[in-house]
Amino acid sequence: MTERLLVIGGDAAGMSAASQARKRRGRDDLEIVAFERGDFTSYSACGIPYLVGDVVDDPAKLISRTPEVFRSDFDIDVRMRHEVVEIDLDRRALKVRDLAAATESWEGFDQLVLGLGSVPMRPPIPGADARGIHGVQTLGDGIALRDRLVSDPGVRRVVVVGGGYIGLEMAEAMVTRGLEVTLVDRSTVPLGIFDEDMSRLVADALTGLGVQLVMGHGVDAFEVDADNHVTAVVAGDHVIPTDLVVLGLGVKPNVAMVQAAGVPLGPSGGIAVDQQMRTQVDGVWAAGDCVESFHRVSRKPVVVALGTHANKQGRTVGVNIGGGYATFPGVIGTAVTKVCSLEIARTGVSSREATDAGFEFVSVVVDSTTRAGYFPGAAPITTKLIAEKRSGRLLGAQIIGQEGAAKRIDVLATALWHEMTVDAMLNLDLSYAPPFSPVWDPVLIAARKAWEAVEADS
Amino acid sequence: MTERLLVIGGDAAGMSAASQARKRRGRDDLEIVAFERGDFTSYSACGIPYLVGDVVDDPAKLISRTPEVFRSDFDIDVRMRHEVVEIDLDRRALKVRDLAAATESWEGFDQLVLGLGSVPMRPPIPGADARGIHGVQTLGDGIALRDRLVSDPGVRRVVVVGGGYIGLEMAEAMVTRGLEVTLVDRSTVPLGIFDEDMSRLVADALTGLGVQLVMGHGVDAFEVDADNHVTAVVAGDHVIPTDLVVLGLGVKPNVAMVQAAGVPLGPSGGIAVDQQMRTQVDGVWAAGDCVESFHRVSRKPVVVALGTHANKQGRTVGVNIGGGYATFPGVIGTAVTKVCSLEIARTGVSSREATDAGFEFVSVVVDSTTRAGYFPGAAPITTKLIAEKRSGRLLGAQIIGQEGAAKRIDVLATALWHEMTVDAMLNLDLSYAPPFSPVWDPVLIAARKAWEAVEADS
Repeated sequence: MTERLLVIGGDAAGMSAASQARKRRGRDDLEIVAFERGDFTSYSACGIPYLVGDVVDDPAKLISRTPEVFRSDFDIDVRMRHEVVEIDLDRRALKVRDLAAATESWEGFDQLVLGLGSVPMRPPIPGADARGIHGVQTLGDGIALRDRLVSDPGVRRVVVVGGGYIGLEMAEAMVTRGLEVTLVDRSTVPLGIFDEDMSRLVADALTGLGVQLVMGHGVDAFEVDADNHVTAVVAGDHVIPTDLVVLGLGVKPNVAMVQAAGVPLGPSGGIAVDQQMRTQVDGVWAAGDCVESFHRVSRKPVVVALGTHANKQGRTVGVNIGGGYATFPGVIGTAVTKVCSLEIARTGVSSREATDAGFEFVSVVVDSTTRAGYFPGAAPITTKLIAEKRSGRLLGAQIIGQEGAAKRIDVLATALWHEMTVDAMLNLDLSYAPPFSPVWDPVLIAARKAWEAVEADS
Repeated sequence: MTERLLVIGGDAAGMSAASQARKRRGRDDLEIVAFERGDFTSYSACGIPYLVGDVVDDPAKLISRTPEVFRSDFDIDVRMRHEVVEIDLDRRALKVRDLAAATESWEGFDQLVLGLGSVPMRPPIPGADARGIHGVQTLGDGIALRDRLVSDPGVRRVVVVGGGYIGLEMAEAMVTRGLEVTLVDRSTVPLGIFDEDMSRLVADALTGLGVQLVMGHGVDAFEVDADNHVTAVVAGDHVIPTDLVVLGLGVKPNVAMVQAAGVPLGPSGGIAVDQQMRTQVDGVWAAGDCVESFHRVSRKPVVVALGTHANKQGRTVGVNIGGGYATFPGVIGTAVTKVCSLEIARTGVSSREATDAGFEFVSVVVDSTTRAGYFPGAAPITTKLIAEKRSGRLLGAQIIGQEGAAKRIDVLATALWHEMTVDAMLNLDLSYAPPFSPVWDPVLIAARKAWEAVEADS
């Protein structure tokens, strides 16, 4: 008998699950229908800032697979502009609204994949629904913002609300476009997810690019004109006149509907899943921005909205639905971004997160270069390592530097994944040649210094 | 009582040991004397090709610490142009020749560090001692070759003998200088230490740069003129007219003197050492190009002449002499180089080495990009993974690609260090953002494909 798999959400998580399941089970064995309320499948949400900044010139480039490809190559029935509005777990059916036709129908399932994604945080404050205030969560949002910037030469001043990754990337995009940018965040420094000494390097870089930083104040209100178009952002004592506002406050799991349906959430607010990405409801799986993940260092449940996790989790779901066996081992908080030429990366826990998790630790900050110091193009790289007291186990790492700096975080991530001590790390057989690193790679120098700090502390 | 430490060799291994020992023991406790037969201490031998190619404009830039700095900052008595010519283990003394004064004396030791380095391979063939045939092992060699190239506009044609790392780097240097370059090697492809399919990519790149490849023939003879200056290289049927020859045939451990003294060597021909880098003679330590290392994948003894190992091994020796405890855990064959814009890296074992070590394996070759495909600057990267049958354990990796490709080998090296399976690797939490990688990093794509190959093979 043919089993019926329904997928809610046509992006990374859902479509990875669907296509992986299809690879393992043919159409006679498994019918697959995916519902996507938007206009696009499987696009790179992380590419939106670069579309807005005109680094990427065509929205189509951000789409990795169109609905047509899923239909023709994977035999997946992708229904675009179809929004699932209700999940009935007893009847094992979804109420689906066809947005174009304005009709609703019920679709039964044997297995269900929840790839619901996230919803952007919006400040619940006066004027937040004014014109000229742009979210940047969906590709549609990105296209709308880009169209506004391209078509309206009157936009000279932009306020970006939120100093996290997306806020920074949007600030960069606006700088790239030659606009006057103000970044507003309630933290004392942008990128508060980093340790403050490292965040200050980012703040300095932003200031150097001409970005005005208004830190230590959340947005209190938006002032609007008679047309309900935003004219200023109010943050504490600051009234920042602006032509346009970008909301980059991050996201939260899109779980209202599944919660109403009775799919249990975890303490982080994401959908609770087991090692195989099964929810607590039989035959219902979840992946991507809407699920809770296990943080391998803090051992806490976390929600991390990143395409790379969505793809891996979706693959895990698809392998299991397909009759294979796969588990998702959790995350360690690795992330990377850049602001113009400044590369910024982290893995593991920050100092605050380490303390919150109950660790005691030492930390070191090491300045080095990305190539041998004498080699042309050698650029500064600052590496901070956080290592557990006594054991010397690597708990976290942060890197800020120029070209070639950030991707070194992956070496630290892989070492941290294995709970390496910084003592053991310093003898890692990493590659060396003058165009690529000093004879002691910055990662190894940092490990050596961290071990010295652990020894000195003992 | 003050102990006396003698160090033979003023380069990476010896001076790392000396300075690390000094950090832990003061001058009243430990006298340190280092003998260096050459004119330089602690220089980057790996930088020589870039000096020759004029990428680095001043030999002084390759020197990380001068004898004066060792004296003033570390209280190490570095005696330059002092060659140790005999080791007497019974008397625990060295016969030292002062090359400038042409005198000899005996120096007693309590502890001895052998940082003897390596000697270049030279073909035992007619004409090998002719003028115009340059080795490139020491900084002096590099300076001599550079001076010749700068001062003699008659040099238009260069033959580089040897297609390993140093041969490739010298070929690049000569191309950079606008010379006509022929590369001669007895292997069928350059960089025979890689799998042939990967080496072919390097061969294609060299050819694209205008380098003539004469493969499959070792050098049989050098033709010389009446002044005993080289005029041609004879390799099989090829007679290659040339103005200058660079010998880049690699090196072997410099062990004749220690062997004569009775310090045992290992099966690889390097000095045998234990975990702490102690030789089998009490109070005698060794580090760097002259020692044998344990290869953690093949589990065979190997000699690897690389500055990065010399530094780590030297540090290990110095910590132990200093009263601390450190071990050198072995190597996994990581290496990186480049030929103009082509980056080339490897770790672990090649297919041939895997077979020699008794492994059965699958391998995959995956083409991807260094950034998200749509991001400007996304460059090709080809990754080959070798994974053990059944278990899927990563045994080796090779990367060839453009900017941003090579350093990814360090992630693979760290994974391989921990004997990760490719199945486990594909869920590694590596950093992702469009300027830095596709949503599946090339490393993870390769791991995924390798796991599929392992599964298909089972």
